[in-house]
Amino acid sequence: MTAPKTPLLDTVDMPADLRKLDKSQLRQLADELRDEMISAVGSTGGHLGSGLGVVELTTAIHYVFNTPDDRLIWDVGHQAYPHKILTGRRDRIRTLRQGGGLSGFTKRTESEYDPFGAAHSSTSISAALGFAVANKLNDTPGKGIAVIGDGAMSAGMAYEAMNNAEQAGNRLVVILNDNDMSIAPPVGGLSAYLARMVSSSEYLGLRSLASKLVKKMSRRVHNSLGKAEEFTRGMVTGGTLFEELGFYYVGPIDGHNLDHLIPVLENVRDAEDGPVLVHVVTKKGKGYAPAEDSADKYHGVPKFDVVTGEKAKSAAGPPAYQNVFGETLAKLADNDPRICAITAAMPSGTGVDKFAAAHPTRAFDVGIAEQHGVTFAAGLAAQGMRPFAAIYSTFLQRAYDQVVHDVAIQNLPVRFAIDRAGLVGADGATHAGSFDITYLASLPNFVVMAAADEAELVHMTYTAAEHDSGPIALRYPRGNGVGVDLPETPILLEIGKGRVVREGSKVALLSLGTRLAEAQKAADQLEAKGLSTTVADLRFAKPLDTDLIARLMRDHEVVVTVEEAAIGGLGAHVLTYASDEGLTDAGLKIRTLRLPDRFQDQDAPDKQYDEAGLNAPQIVETVLKALRHNTAGDDQRVEEARA
Amino acid sequence: MTAPKTPLLDTVDMPADLRKLDKSQLRQLADELRDEMISAVGSTGGHLGSGLGVVELTTAIHYVFNTPDDRLIWDVGHQAYPHKILTGRRDRIRTLRQGGGLSGFTKRTESEYDPFGAAHSSTSISAALGFAVANKLNDTPGKGIAVIGDGAMSAGMAYEAMNNAEQAGNRLVVILNDNDMSIAPPVGGLSAYLARMVSSSEYLGLRSLASKLVKKMSRRVHNSLGKAEEFTRGMVTGGTLFEELGFYYVGPIDGHNLDHLIPVLENVRDAEDGPVLVHVVTKKGKGYAPAEDSADKYHGVPKFDVVTGEKAKSAAGPPAYQNVFGETLAKLADNDPRICAITAAMPSGTGVDKFAAAHPTRAFDVGIAEQHGVTFAAGLAAQGMRPFAAIYSTFLQRAYDQVVHDVAIQNLPVRFAIDRAGLVGADGATHAGSFDITYLASLPNFVVMAAADEAELVHMTYTAAEHDSGPIALRYPRGNGVGVDLPETPILLEIGKGRVVREGSKVALLSLGTRLAEAQKAADQLEAKGLSTTVADLRFAKPLDTDLIARLMRDHEVVVTVEEAAIGGLGAHVLTYASDEGLTDAGLKIRTLRLPDRFQDQDAPDKQYDEAGLNAPQIVETVLKALRHNTAGDDQRVEEARA
Repeated sequence: MTAPKTPLLDTVDMPADLRKLDKSQLRQLADELRDEMISAVGSTGGHLGSGLGVVELTTAIHYVFNTPDDRLIWDVGHQAYPHKILTGRRDRIRTLRQGGGLSGFTKRTESEYDPFGAAHSSTSISAALGFAVANKLNDTPGKGIAVIGDGAMSAGMAYEAMNNAEQAGNRLVVILNDNDMSIAPPVGGLSAYLARMVSSSEYLGLRSLASKLVKKMSRRVHNSLGKAEEFTRGMVTGGTLFEELGFYYVGPIDGHNLDHLIPVLENVRDAEDGPVLVHVVTKKGKGYAPAEDSADKYHGVPKFDVVTGEKAKSAAGPPAYQNVFGETLAKLADNDPRICAITAAMPSGTGVDKFAAAHPTRAFDVGIAEQHGVTFAAGLAAQGMRPFAAIYSTFLQRAYDQVVHDVAIQNLPVRFAIDRAGLVGADGATHAGSFDITYLASLPNFVVMAAADEAELVHMTYTAAEHDSGPIALRYPRGNGVGVDLPETPILLEIGKGRVVREGSKVALLSLGTRLAEAQKAADQLEAKGLSTTVADLRFAKPLDTDLIARLMRDHEVVVTVEEAAIGGLGAHVLTYASDEGLTDAGLKIRTLRLPDRFQDQDAPDKQYDEAGLNAPQIVETVLKALRHNTAGDDQRVEEARA
Repeated sequence: MTAPKTPLLDTVDMPADLRKLDKSQLRQLADELRDEMISAVGSTGGHLGSGLGVVELTTAIHYVFNTPDDRLIWDVGHQAYPHKILTGRRDRIRTLRQGGGLSGFTKRTESEYDPFGAAHSSTSISAALGFAVANKLNDTPGKGIAVIGDGAMSAGMAYEAMNNAEQAGNRLVVILNDNDMSIAPPVGGLSAYLARMVSSSEYLGLRSLASKLVKKMSRRVHNSLGKAEEFTRGMVTGGTLFEELGFYYVGPIDGHNLDHLIPVLENVRDAEDGPVLVHVVTKKGKGYAPAEDSADKYHGVPKFDVVTGEKAKSAAGPPAYQNVFGETLAKLADNDPRICAITAAMPSGTGVDKFAAAHPTRAFDVGIAEQHGVTFAAGLAAQGMRPFAAIYSTFLQRAYDQVVHDVAIQNLPVRFAIDRAGLVGADGATHAGSFDITYLASLPNFVVMAAADEAELVHMTYTAAEHDSGPIALRYPRGNGVGVDLPETPILLEIGKGRVVREGSKVALLSLGTRLAEAQKAADQLEAKGLSTTVADLRFAKPLDTDLIARLMRDHEVVVTVEEAAIGGLGAHVLTYASDEGLTDAGLKIRTLRLPDRFQDQDAPDKQYDEAGLNAPQIVETVLKALRHNTAGDDQRVEEARA
């Protein structure tokens, strides 16, 4: 594959270079930037459609505004590849999302042009407001500029920020990138509202737009017209909802037309009043036919052939966990009219699309609105339904208070299907599902399960459906199952009971979740060294199988817990139980393997688990080290010196 | 104090009784209900102003709607005392917020008329939508009715729910109780918007209101006018913002005029289209002169004299923790222009009012918007400020993802001043700060402190201000300090270092937070039994003072941790450290005292801590039991049988 010819882009390493160009050259620059981005993502995979939609916008913003002193914040950040290319990172753009490479999102440690990292949606206005207000307090120049999609506007956090925006004055600029398409088709009243705004108004001609801007934003004119002007703002171009919240609204503007974008942004830059919301309409996947023509606009893609658009096929293999979940739930719902599924703008990522295909009236996509989604589920449960809130581990953090206050305290049987538990590979630290066991198992009334494989996921989905006495969560990882047969008939698991998958006598490995395969491998290696090893799949982080754990502690010399989660989860609960009962009073070698106390960057999941110390070799090493550990105390150093 | 004469109210035990009354009697009933409520709260203390504001609305809703089949959800729930009186709980109304008495909020276990409990704000629309949709799926009659204040509308969650409301059709009714006053004066664009709506429109006359309602909501009329009608709705009475989100807007209506409320609600009840938002304007504290005249409208009051309005004085004593924090921060900020304070609608509860009085431009009340508040603070920190996000422990749960994603992953030095940590007394389980150590100490980069007394709080506030290398949290309880002298000059604490407050040799008590006083008492009692006891104040849950902990474990026979937090916190971290290092391999009696695995109802805090097993007697008992515990295992039963 040949790299595209980019003679003009080759002269632009930083925004300062860009600003030296004549406006008439920007069209060519944008075209080259688009080609370069397509080429790069073709070779790495990643987010394509969103970046393609903002090529002109990226060019225009850096041309007009004084980045990095003007703080530019890309909401979510997966549309920031063109931004990375224009801000000194073109030489690394083909390392996107690879281990050691560029992050797939914006990241403070990568560049001063990334003043605020992102990955979860809808944070940008709050952060931009922070920058703007800090500058205002310090009487420092520099704006906060948030670029946020229409989908991200469905999150309450964006609304909270808009509700607070007025204090920033002209230091805050919000650019609403309206592509009528986030990851999934848009939902909700706001989306319909935006669609009405765009459909009911022609794009403004440049002259009329400019003259309206002057009228609306120049302090001089404003003053000469007096306060009356203030009360009529919002009447000129519509945009009432935003203006009622205190913004000057400008738009809608064609986001691919540099001749419109540049002068409008120049006006916004020079406006004496604010905050300003610029409503820009773009097309996701713009300028690359295969993306424009596909339903998801190449939102996230594997490597692909740039000429044909053909995507690299993933090897056939076991089904993805999300689909096992979605299809199992759909089947259960055939015979159970109480089962519902809720997703927060992730129908395909969570497998809820499979459920929705079979039971459309009982599938709810609430938009990027995890808080509402969980309490809505609690309301459904309180009225006798059996709701499954299918939310990634990392995104469920958005609804933690709703989990505590609306679900756990009321002991309502909401089922949490927690996908992307554990490390997630290319998306890196922001998407890792590290904390859910800790933040859920500490809650009274909760049952917390983790599936060891896709067959277990089937059983747990069924067990959750049947569990009407309180909240229950099941967690499972990103990616494909291990290849076991899926059961014809799911088994109703006994709450709080684990299973022994291998009986031994000296070492006991207590696994929770899909580390079970590594625990088995470790057991093989330990047996080869003559160490008889028990492996248990605990299935439940809460309630613990205390009978099983007590027995294994009594009968074994070393006990090691293994989980794909941070401190405070299974290991902590096992240790707490053991100390409550005095099981370790007389001495017992317990070790807890868990995620490390640092955020891990993107890499292949297996490498990430190596780094985390959660693969078979590290399990073996932990056991051996514990066995070597001389419990007489000071002698240990001698022992280790000898080893 | 004589109880008020309430001849008509005496005939009403349940809404069914109310519905038998003639409309002409409702005014008298409302008056008696108001008198009864004032009398009750006068004797118990509690939330007064909010309930007084909705006496007529409560009466009207139960008169018009078919509760409990129509599911009525009071947002926050502290305005639901009149509702409790009318729904079979009048005989217990003078037990409000007492141990064993009625909750100060709505609660599912209390009454079928409380279909969804509340206490944290802004959950009601989501829950009502859950009820409405469940009924729709099951083709069951019954609406979901949410009554929500204008302050609660500033939370993103309410917006998320409104954005999803359209699917509920006429089964969802949202009553916006606009009293222009939540706990503190309102903030933000939405509030200004509501004020403009109310001030720009006269209350509609009944005739015109009714005729508009018919026009807007009757399916017959709607059909005869055709689809065009749909596009013009919202033009009739204003209310654009809500109508853009998909609601039929009705209002504003005088919320104390039963002659208006009843027919409007009847129309809403019978409407064939929806969802409907009814904008009701009320006056907080209505009908009780001392409340109406006070700045906070008697939002939350101690016992008071009904005739004079004079409130019971609390005994003079040590200052409240919140004020120590606010005043300390204000002083530090005198010499440090980078210090800012953020509160989410709790300026006085958090002590940020003290800071704001001294530094108004650096104090930010973001409304009920914890998510925005935390990321806004992250933005301030990224621009070099030293922001303190002062948020109650239980409310910080609302911003957990922002804490993880925007603060911890980016390692930004946001300071979290976490008030109401631990058990909180009369507000009960929904307001307890039980989980923050667990959910924060599991995060990489975080420093987590807990103050043992008000002098420690001064040191920790200063230490947090000076800590620029990453996020840091300090937690402290509700209520007043223990009475130690406040330091003239705060001490910069060494991060991750505890202090030994009493040296012993057999038993070590490792305390975090204000249980230190109980640990000291326990040590006295243990010493009296001849057990030499060390007491340490660890100060930090993260990073742990591992040197100190290792030494105490080496030198003592029993080690007990004590904290005002749930499982997964200090105790779990100490156990994990000990097992990581093999410190318990040869046997060591460790016990972790923590909050129990159940939600605790309201009571006096000391009684709650007794129930939790965290007072001196239980600490002593834990130590003695551990010492008795025969580490030889099976012999223990013999030992205990003998004891």
